[in-house]
Amino acid sequence: MSSLKPIDFKENKLYLLDQRLLPLEENYVEIETIEQTHEAIKQMIVRGAPCIGFTAIYGMAFAVLQTKKFNFEKIEEKGAYLASSRPTAVNLKFEIQKVLNFLKILARENDDPIFLFKKIVELGDKEIKLSEARNRNMATVAREELRSNLGKDKYKILTHCNTGHLACGSLGTALGVIEHLADCGEIETVWVDETRPYLQGSRLTSYELSKLDIEHQIVTEGAASYLMSHGLVDAIFTGADRVVANGDTANKIGTANLAILANHFQIPFYIVAPQSTFDFESEHGNQIDIELRDPEEILKYNGQQIAPYSAKAFNPSFDVTPGELISGIINEHGIAKGDYKSSLGEICHYD
Amino acid sequence: MSSLKPIDFKENKLYLLDQRLLPLEENYVEIETIEQTHEAIKQMIVRGAPCIGFTAIYGMAFAVLQTKKFNFEKIEEKGAYLASSRPTAVNLKFEIQKVLNFLKILARENDDPIFLFKKIVELGDKEIKLSEARNRNMATVAREELRSNLGKDKYKILTHCNTGHLACGSLGTALGVIEHLADCGEIETVWVDETRPYLQGSRLTSYELSKLDIEHQIVTEGAASYLMSHGLVDAIFTGADRVVANGDTANKIGTANLAILANHFQIPFYIVAPQSTFDFESEHGNQIDIELRDPEEILKYNGQQIAPYSAKAFNPSFDVTPGELISGIINEHGIAKGDYKSSLGEICHYD
Repeated sequence: MSSLKPIDFKENKLYLLDQRLLPLEENYVEIETIEQTHEAIKQMIVRGAPCIGFTAIYGMAFAVLQTKKFNFEKIEEKGAYLASSRPTAVNLKFEIQKVLNFLKILARENDDPIFLFKKIVELGDKEIKLSEARNRNMATVAREELRSNLGKDKYKILTHCNTGHLACGSLGTALGVIEHLADCGEIETVWVDETRPYLQGSRLTSYELSKLDIEHQIVTEGAASYLMSHGLVDAIFTGADRVVANGDTANKIGTANLAILANHFQIPFYIVAPQSTFDFESEHGNQIDIELRDPEEILKYNGQQIAPYSAKAFNPSFDVTPGELISGIINEHGIAKGDYKSSLGEICHYD
Repeated sequence: MSSLKPIDFKENKLYLLDQRLLPLEENYVEIETIEQTHEAIKQMIVRGAPCIGFTAIYGMAFAVLQTKKFNFEKIEEKGAYLASSRPTAVNLKFEIQKVLNFLKILARENDDPIFLFKKIVELGDKEIKLSEARNRNMATVAREELRSNLGKDKYKILTHCNTGHLACGSLGTALGVIEHLADCGEIETVWVDETRPYLQGSRLTSYELSKLDIEHQIVTEGAASYLMSHGLVDAIFTGADRVVANGDTANKIGTANLAILANHFQIPFYIVAPQSTFDFESEHGNQIDIELRDPEEILKYNGQQIAPYSAKAFNPSFDVTPGELISGIINEHGIAKGDYKSSLGEICHYD
């Protein structure tokens, strides 16, 4: 199922499935420089916090290969440049820092750019592979949680944005939970909200669920309270771009709306995100830098003008859901609940 | 400013501004039968509860003209047919009933179809004219309410869907409030949410505000809690398609989301709707018939496929906001608050 493979590294080149063209066109973009990597992340050819992180690893490999003689400070600068492509997701910074730490040690033995390039590529390949196992763990934890919290035979799940293979490079986070529940025969239906303006829901999540043959229906984001008030949603699962110390969570714009609505209707609302998404250097959600994207994403659809030519738009790409509105935060080691200042630490394992 | 005139009756024909093509094309569709009227309402060439009502009056005039010999029962059937074009807005049924009551009396004197046709057209013209004065009253009441509740010099107002000239045939309801505040120099900014799937916000409300030179920015519906949590919204005004006895209000899908979010952030949320929108035959919001529209509205944009070809969508066109989440319901006679079972009656005047 190659079309569920957003990142493919082969013959010294990175191939990214152009997610802007999905679901109607499956086209891979060839990347071989850090500048192209930066642009691919910024333009959302590749997206989803985990995939952005993996892409950045290969981007750093190109940065090393592009230098004639290895110079750590220069590579550090390249890392900062790459990190600036999207400010909110913490995985990006996390993976770039991992590459820098790795290089610091490795280059002492051998600083040949071609050798280092190969080693970083191996790191990228390994990280993607490891993430699949982590995501399987998260799905298992989430299923257990649903069983103990709701104990139904089948569930009606609402999800936002895209958190599947296309976002994670392998089985997804929140969508990984849904795929796992479907494998267990426990999905009644999945509500996929459109997720304006990039339409990750109707374009990408629906594309994945269609390929996986999982029953789902697309709805507008405006329909959320209609569904909840009609008893059509048992639980909500979303991913995260950054989880901070008190549980406040940055995720795709519209997530906080859902959490507030879920709270109003007393429907459980869960975040599913790997430990690499946790940022304990920030105490509170108001310390998270929220990316403001190009208003054109709202004013146009696929190049066609929607609004009056003179119209302006305001396009924050993420919002912050307060920890107290989140029923549980699930990572590869377990689920945190209640006072996140203590419970989040309990599900973090450091190598 | 003809392009803010959604309904124009001249030389025995009804001209409807095709709102599906706005803001990029200003094209009037010519209507001269009740069947064309039904289709124009159903296809949303004309939309907005008040405009749908006015259009229906002219549609009934055509129905009479199309019969060779006047027959009240036949016209009643035509009325039921026309009312079925959109089930949620009560103005449609209200205006059709008004025409039927009018015909019952009038036809006793003179049942010549041409005579009756002219009289119904006069009724339509009169209703549109009267509505303008009603809308001015609502705007005045709303401004007074803001002054006593918030008392600011300038306001940041969020609105949903389109409730302006294009929806009301004259100065709007909720958007009429905004236009009035702007005339008084009391608008700091207007947040126009897109309003998926028909995009009434980005296509129509932005079009009106641009023509009126009122400062505004388009946002996705997902951005609502971002704006509210950042102190960027002082109050929310929306229209209504039906207000029932306990204050429960049907309005464009997404309205109830906003009311719940506003409640969470303690931001006042107001409904602005003429008395013709009130339906005291229904006690509770769950008695309101919610129109489910074609999934294609979600799956396609302007004929272009957005989602996978196999994808399904669920497209409820309205939701019901519980009365207890509404800070005030404003009509042409005043504002109702608190226990709507008594307060709504106090702002209803019957001729």
